[in-house]
Amino acid sequence: MTKIVAFVLYPGLTPLDLVGPLQTLTTLSAFAPEYRTVVVSERIGSTRTDLPLLLTASDTFEDVPRPHTVVVPGGLGTYRQLANHALLDYVRGAEHAASVCTGSLILGAAGLLEGRRATSHWAVRDTLAAFGAIPVAERWVEDGNVITAAGVSAGIDLALHLAERFAGPEVARHVQLAIEYDPEPPLGPLDWNTVDTTALAEPIRRAMRAELADHPDLLSRLTSGVGSA
Amino acid sequence: MTKIVAFVLYPGLTPLDLVGPLQTLTTLSAFAPEYRTVVVSERIGSTRTDLPLLLTASDTFEDVPRPHTVVVPGGLGTYRQLANHALLDYVRGAEHAASVCTGSLILGAAGLLEGRRATSHWAVRDTLAAFGAIPVAERWVEDGNVITAAGVSAGIDLALHLAERFAGPEVARHVQLAIEYDPEPPLGPLDWNTVDTTALAEPIRRAMRAELADHPDLLSRLTSGVGSA
Repeated sequence: MTKIVAFVLYPGLTPLDLVGPLQTLTTLSAFAPEYRTVVVSERIGSTRTDLPLLLTASDTFEDVPRPHTVVVPGGLGTYRQLANHALLDYVRGAEHAASVCTGSLILGAAGLLEGRRATSHWAVRDTLAAFGAIPVAERWVEDGNVITAAGVSAGIDLALHLAERFAGPEVARHVQLAIEYDPEPPLGPLDWNTVDTTALAEPIRRAMRAELADHPDLLSRLTSGVGSA
Repeated sequence: MTKIVAFVLYPGLTPLDLVGPLQTLTTLSAFAPEYRTVVVSERIGSTRTDLPLLLTASDTFEDVPRPHTVVVPGGLGTYRQLANHALLDYVRGAEHAASVCTGSLILGAAGLLEGRRATSHWAVRDTLAAFGAIPVAERWVEDGNVITAAGVSAGIDLALHLAERFAGPEVARHVQLAIEYDPEPPLGPLDWNTVDTTALAEPIRRAMRAELADHPDLLSRLTSGVGSA
């Protein structure tokens, strides 16, 4: 039986959050054809992103209800989606839920993180506590049928982990070879003891306040969550 | 003065080849606003890819002639583009040329790799010799004003290297932190001594033959190049 892995599109998302795991799991489907990837949006039409690039989904929420796995990307547009009940309902309808970056806030708003260990982009990780989650500083975190990844590029690692879980390590290695995922960050890995987080934290807080200007209750909930973990 | 970094879209490309470096260098432009990223296609309209996702460029070739840097992604659609003179002319018009994955074949067809060290997706790397290049098995290779990356995910490493070259290591580290590029492949790095390349090499050769059915001279040139390096 076909198992559908549905990637959610919404305005203002960060394309790498979505395309990293989508490329990985679409490659998986060449080796394990029982898995089929789709990209879903609420309505037909192209979606703006934080890049000079529009994305167009293959299907709508109605076309592919109740997927095997839903994958929710992040981006500064995430905040506004925390009040989008069509999206939250769609996410709740999947058997398994995955997120990349601030996409975990959407899983939280859908009520999927209550009492669960979860992660997000480092700059908003503590905000997950506002949804009853236990924020964890890991590359990805699996707790029951919910798996959350750290920021942006972490979606590739999460997807390779899913590939292994779906089809075993041999197939996951084929996928890794196909996308030649043998990373060599030119300046080495991040050194979390010395990174300068100040340049990024404030623009993100500013975007959150702007995006949630019409939703003061949600803003207050998220703001009180910060630092409480 | 604004320096434009133009990412090329064409039918059948691999989105991660493009979105990885585009996300990286668009993030760079937040810290170094003299760099501006655009996505260009030959004509207006959305472009099919090897994923269930259409991409739409921000500009056409005519809108942004002679960019500072052109970035050419790969994909199985690459082969047909080797005979697209509008695309080859566009690539030749840039001051600096970069490629990801099989995008280096396009740089080769544009005449930019003659006598130069270059790389590509591992499965087609030796084919670069057909364009007079010296194939090199590295994550990315810089030779003069041409820089080529290995397959798919290697575009992120290449783009962080460009970020460092454009704006220095401190800014490149900010970019790396913003996209949280701290890779943890779940099964570890690729072990090139044990990987099984057979499952992938044949489908790629088959696609090359199908895509170039109307261009026997080009096909013969590429086929005779294989293994000659």
